[in-house]
Amino acid sequence: MSDLPSRITITEEGPREGFQIESGAISTNRKVELINALSHTGLSAIQVCSFVNPKLVPGWADAGEVVNAIQVVDGVTYTALWFNQKGIERALQHTDKLTLAGCIHLCASEAFGISNLHRDRETNLQAMRQQTINHQSGGIAVTKISVMAAFGCNFSADVPTANVLQAVDDGFNIASEHGASINEVALADTMGWATPSRIVAVTGAVRERWPDVPIRLHLHDTRGIGISNAWAAMQLGVDRFDTTVGGLGGCPFARQPGASGNIATEELLLLAHEEGIDTGVDINALLECVALAEDIVGRQLPGALLRGGNLERYRQAARSGHGAA
Amino acid sequence: MSDLPSRITITEEGPREGFQIESGAISTNRKVELINALSHTGLSAIQVCSFVNPKLVPGWADAGEVVNAIQVVDGVTYTALWFNQKGIERALQHTDKLTLAGCIHLCASEAFGISNLHRDRETNLQAMRQQTINHQSGGIAVTKISVMAAFGCNFSADVPTANVLQAVDDGFNIASEHGASINEVALADTMGWATPSRIVAVTGAVRERWPDVPIRLHLHDTRGIGISNAWAAMQLGVDRFDTTVGGLGGCPFARQPGASGNIATEELLLLAHEEGIDTGVDINALLECVALAEDIVGRQLPGALLRGGNLERYRQAARSGHGAA
Repeated sequence: MSDLPSRITITEEGPREGFQIESGAISTNRKVELINALSHTGLSAIQVCSFVNPKLVPGWADAGEVVNAIQVVDGVTYTALWFNQKGIERALQHTDKLTLAGCIHLCASEAFGISNLHRDRETNLQAMRQQTINHQSGGIAVTKISVMAAFGCNFSADVPTANVLQAVDDGFNIASEHGASINEVALADTMGWATPSRIVAVTGAVRERWPDVPIRLHLHDTRGIGISNAWAAMQLGVDRFDTTVGGLGGCPFARQPGASGNIATEELLLLAHEEGIDTGVDINALLECVALAEDIVGRQLPGALLRGGNLERYRQAARSGHGAA
Repeated sequence: MSDLPSRITITEEGPREGFQIESGAISTNRKVELINALSHTGLSAIQVCSFVNPKLVPGWADAGEVVNAIQVVDGVTYTALWFNQKGIERALQHTDKLTLAGCIHLCASEAFGISNLHRDRETNLQAMRQQTINHQSGGIAVTKISVMAAFGCNFSADVPTANVLQAVDDGFNIASEHGASINEVALADTMGWATPSRIVAVTGAVRERWPDVPIRLHLHDTRGIGISNAWAAMQLGVDRFDTTVGGLGGCPFARQPGASGNIATEELLLLAHEEGIDTGVDINALLECVALAEDIVGRQLPGALLRGGNLERYRQAARSGHGAA
């Protein structure tokens, strides 16, 4: 375990992932309430919304209103997600609050891209070239490569590591063509296929080929073993993770109603803190956000820690002579 | 990961752990229905009930009726739990179906023993000496040592590894005094304090001192990181685990209403199978038991795989040309 990082950085994606998939309408005010609460937990980055087609994702029809209403906190980076020129234009209206970074989105599984983005590999590469131009025209630096379905795919099943390397290579080629400087490669377990060994194989192969580029992992807990994947990644020294408060979100792909969302922020915090890894986040404040998120969506979220109880609370009680706080 | 076992053995404790804690009354017939279904999944061991005080655990007032009604399947070992002479006597009425093994129960945290068993260490040791005599008088061989709160305690917080070694040593001393031959030491994360590093430290210390005695882990998922603990244990070569179908159960200790139960059988199966570790269990048949268990208890259980979907199903669909089965 010698490669464990001393600190990991978490990007909280609960608002963006969660509110795009919840079935009932959630008011703008309540979305803002959660984002504002998350801003005071010590998190350094929060992805607050998606600028996507409101007909396809009605949950984010009010993305602009949400950004207008949030109260930004110093030291917190607020980001958003978009996939086309229209989204870029909407995001550009919020540069007072949002930090905009252009991303080159790729699929390690062509079957996933065809099914969900309606693009084969070549069509997507062409779209990403155009989007890179669009980003740069808007003054948005293209700094990220993100690979979806990097560990497996509900449509094509196992994804060879070579496909992931090809996708990352495609991304660097597009960046190079347009003079973009990439500072992060994100590997997304979009449909929850990762296992510890796949984390080791894929992350290791990407790092071996591009040793100087930091790797981010975006892990879903679709099948309940996401936290073991995060642990395997930390043992390799991976120090950037996307998570969602309470495990908000789901798997909008491939007919999986009710599937779990991303790995829960508070569970990754607990694992990190107990293993001596700093996160900068106050786990008790984050647990208050879990309770708030459950109140907002009207259901119990997958994260277990809210009901299990933070270990530090029990330590404090034991020290004060009152066990089982 | 060179110590990964080629095969692990799972003891399914869902019926015993689950039905003792569910709030609503569950009929004897439905308990039997779940146990019978579990018997046809390839599981080699199922803990079916507790012979405990029905005033304290009303959910198991019908333990005898349940055992009478289950249909035993060749190759499956059926076990039960008890803590006193009355329990021994009840268990002895079912030797036609149950495999009875005497266990010496110890606590690595004295505070836990005082709070939950109303016994300090010395009192418990005396009780275990008497229970060993009672077992042997009933013709039940004493073959197991089980250490509760082996990784931490809601009452005393962190548990030193030395306390676990002391508890195991106490167990071997009692066994030795009574000529009992121990063939397994179980370490229980009774209140969900384990982390990967604690698994490595405690399991390693026990194995170093008693290298020839197999170690079993009984892991709870109280705080959501149980599967990462199981993965850490498998990497050490631990090959015996207690789990519960769907993650049935809870944490009856220390005022944790709604806390998650044991690690989910199906999630450990998925992790094992995907890592090339044999379990002998048909994961699809087990998932049918998860659905049955949810129907019986009337709520969604914590295990994510039922909704996430077994990966093999997607592989088969991809091979047949129909992705996202």
